[in-house]
Amino acid sequence: MCPARLSAVEESLVAAMWTAVECAEAVRGTTSPNPPVGCVVLDRDGVVVGTGGTQPPGGAHAEVGALAVAGERARGGTAVVTLEPCSHYGRTPPCAGALLAAGVARVVYAVSDPDPQAAGGGRVLADAGVRVEGGVLADEVAAGPLRAWLHSVATGRPHVTWKYAATLDGRVAAADGTSRWISSGDSRVEVHEVRRKVDAIVAGRGTVLADDPALTARDAGGTPAARQPLRVVVGLGDLPGGARVLDDAAETLHVRTHDPAEVLAVLGARGVVDVLLEGGPTLAGAFTRAGLVDRVLAYLAPTLLGAGPVALGDAGVATITGAHRLRVEGVTMSGPDVRVSAVPVRD
Amino acid sequence: MCPARLSAVEESLVAAMWTAVECAEAVRGTTSPNPPVGCVVLDRDGVVVGTGGTQPPGGAHAEVGALAVAGERARGGTAVVTLEPCSHYGRTPPCAGALLAAGVARVVYAVSDPDPQAAGGGRVLADAGVRVEGGVLADEVAAGPLRAWLHSVATGRPHVTWKYAATLDGRVAAADGTSRWISSGDSRVEVHEVRRKVDAIVAGRGTVLADDPALTARDAGGTPAARQPLRVVVGLGDLPGGARVLDDAAETLHVRTHDPAEVLAVLGARGVVDVLLEGGPTLAGAFTRAGLVDRVLAYLAPTLLGAGPVALGDAGVATITGAHRLRVEGVTMSGPDVRVSAVPVRD
Ligand SMILES: NC(=O)c1ccc[n+]([C@@H]2O[C@H](COP(=O)([O-])OP(=O)(O)OC[C@H]3O[C@@H](n4cnc5c(N)ncnc54)[C@H](OP(=O)(O)O)[C@@H]3O)[C@@H](O)[C@H]2O)c1
Ligand SMILES: NC(=O)c1ccc[n+]([C@@H]2O[C@H](COP(=O)([O-])OP(=O)(O)OC[C@H]3O[C@@H](n4cnc5c(N)ncnc54)[C@H](OP(=O)(O)O)[C@@H]3O)[C@@H](O)[C@H]2O)c1
Repeated sequence: MCPARLSAVEESLVAAMWTAVECAEAVRGTTSPNPPVGCVVLDRDGVVVGTGGTQPPGGAHAEVGALAVAGERARGGTAVVTLEPCSHYGRTPPCAGALLAAGVARVVYAVSDPDPQAAGGGRVLADAGVRVEGGVLADEVAAGPLRAWLHSVATGRPHVTWKYAATLDGRVAAADGTSRWISSGDSRVEVHEVRRKVDAIVAGRGTVLADDPALTARDAGGTPAARQPLRVVVGLGDLPGGARVLDDAAETLHVRTHDPAEVLAVLGARGVVDVLLEGGPTLAGAFTRAGLVDRVLAYLAPTLLGAGPVALGDAGVATITGAHRLRVEGVTMSGPDVRVSAVPVRD
Repeated sequence: MCPARLSAVEESLVAAMWTAVECAEAVRGTTSPNPPVGCVVLDRDGVVVGTGGTQPPGGAHAEVGALAVAGERARGGTAVVTLEPCSHYGRTPPCAGALLAAGVARVVYAVSDPDPQAAGGGRVLADAGVRVEGGVLADEVAAGPLRAWLHSVATGRPHVTWKYAATLDGRVAAADGTSRWISSGDSRVEVHEVRRKVDAIVAGRGTVLADDPALTARDAGGTPAARQPLRVVVGLGDLPGGARVLDDAAETLHVRTHDPAEVLAVLGARGVVDVLLEGGPTLAGAFTRAGLVDRVLAYLAPTLLGAGPVALGDAGVATITGAHRLRVEGVTMSGPDVRVSAVPVRD
């Protein structure tokens, strides 16, 4: 799609797709193992008459929700959806059928369904005479709300974001081990937003022993989010009985292994699609060494320590040419901190 | 100055001041101990008829150069200059006198002269009937071409920028000590530009022993710049006879001390105003501990090492509350690398 060539009609479809992206983002973190999808229904005149996002497993898909809101106004209209509508029976009836039943004349989607079991919704609709177009904002959706789900479909394992907060000189704690509030209040609020939208938060036993973190998603005032990601602690040893991760604020899984692949297998089997790895250095090193970090999210605080543990422990690199290479996909400020998002360059 | 309220005439003065900033930047690195100043002369109709920048010590000041270019067209015109014109006799006659002699009707400058010996040029001009205004783009000039010079006038010591190249996880070399090309080609070209504009490049003896750096300013093709900053190696021990810093590509000073303040005193006495501290970790730690780093310039390469030396050694911080706090003043991409410029927050 070349935006410069879009007609007014096409422009309104792109705008509708951005709304669909927002609908998808709004439900991200609540849909796994299903993809967080957003849908916007326009009437014959291009007016938005319904929006929807994927409901938790067993609930309605995005299209069904948006069509329910639109009702009769969907007839002859357009459905704009972030993922190609499904055509197979899972726990819910296929969306392609629902779109046909609603009398939608046109379906525009972003990303083709990569799941061989589910694919074909576009074909089913086209065969039934619906005008079907794919690829609108496909890159944005694939790198956005569908990133983790597409990754898990492609690789068979959950997507892993390694997040850390360090000083500009790379330290995650001072010489005496103190590390509270390395990053700013703005960054901490942002991290809780990130946590709220993943399926699981993973930390090593060393971090639990050192910092006794709660590993829950809370708002700026400290109130826990209604839905909490699964908490996962990795390590062979026992956890201290009074550890915060063992409270009833969220479910906690203790995976007794040193093998990151085994951790992901256990999580994948539980339907986890999107993992936030919160360190510490030893566990992050093990994931990096195993090639199992799919995104790095670094919050760099503008402070210097000159001593103390660093963000990443042994990642199996002996010499400079063996460095794990990344590509920066975004740099923004998070209050006073520099936030860098980077993804591995796999060659 | 509120740009929204500027008349067309004032707008052209701001544009002329930006040109004056460019003239100053063009000579930065060649004027110490004098400030790199830029000047633009406009004729009666506001047309640019002369530009100039401070010449090396003993040479013409910016105003004199710009007036020479303008000649008779300066009469009745305006001089736009980044620093208040001087009124005292140094090695060259005062600029205020030159502006009066040229018959300039108006003088607009950015930063007031902080040097008590030199100040008063504005007053001298006003007393002679010239319309004089200060403060135009004052912040931009003070944080730009005049930053190091203003700092040295205010503190009596050279301005120090600590520059380093590290991986995203804060390493400056791999476990085996290899560190060549941590940062990208774009960053290296940029660093040579930075080098070209400072008075001295400082490194610790450990860096000389480990990397045998040339510490010269070269262009992308490797050709050395015509003027080279002073090279300074700090450490008590001897330098290896064949070390590159001892070649004749530039002058080299070996300062046998561990005291950063002593290094700056030696350099200040030689007229050095702007210092680029290029590490290593031990020396950077000593400067940071002494509160003698005035700006941090970090080139963060999007790679992960998980082992190897880190950018900053002991900086005298034992616990998190004692961290050296900075404020990020700019984040940009340098090719694939993230470039962070930060300045100390002194409370
Ligand atoms: N600023 C931040 O973003 C941040 C985040 C987290 C932690 N931290 C800091 O990191 C420090 C803790 O570091 P850490 O390295 O001990 O933490 P860690 O990586 O969380 O925990 C290390 C432990 O994880 C287990 N483990 C799991 N997989 C392993 C493997 N492949 N190899 C070895 N051990 C494995 C081991 O536990 P078993 O002994 O039970 O086998 C090991 O002792 C603390 O100072 C904390 O403040 C900072
Ligand atoms: N990527 C980068 O930006 C970058 C830049 C520079 C260096 N590096 C890496 O840094 C490593 C070298 O580290 P380093 O720490 O040895 O380098 P260094 O800081 O350059 O040199 C240390 C030496 O400086 C002298 N020194 C000066 N002031 C001192 C003080 N206050 N306290 C102690 N010593 C002082 C001592 O020499 P005497 O023994 O003679 O007294 C000491 O051995 C190398 O691996 C190099 O590749 C990386």
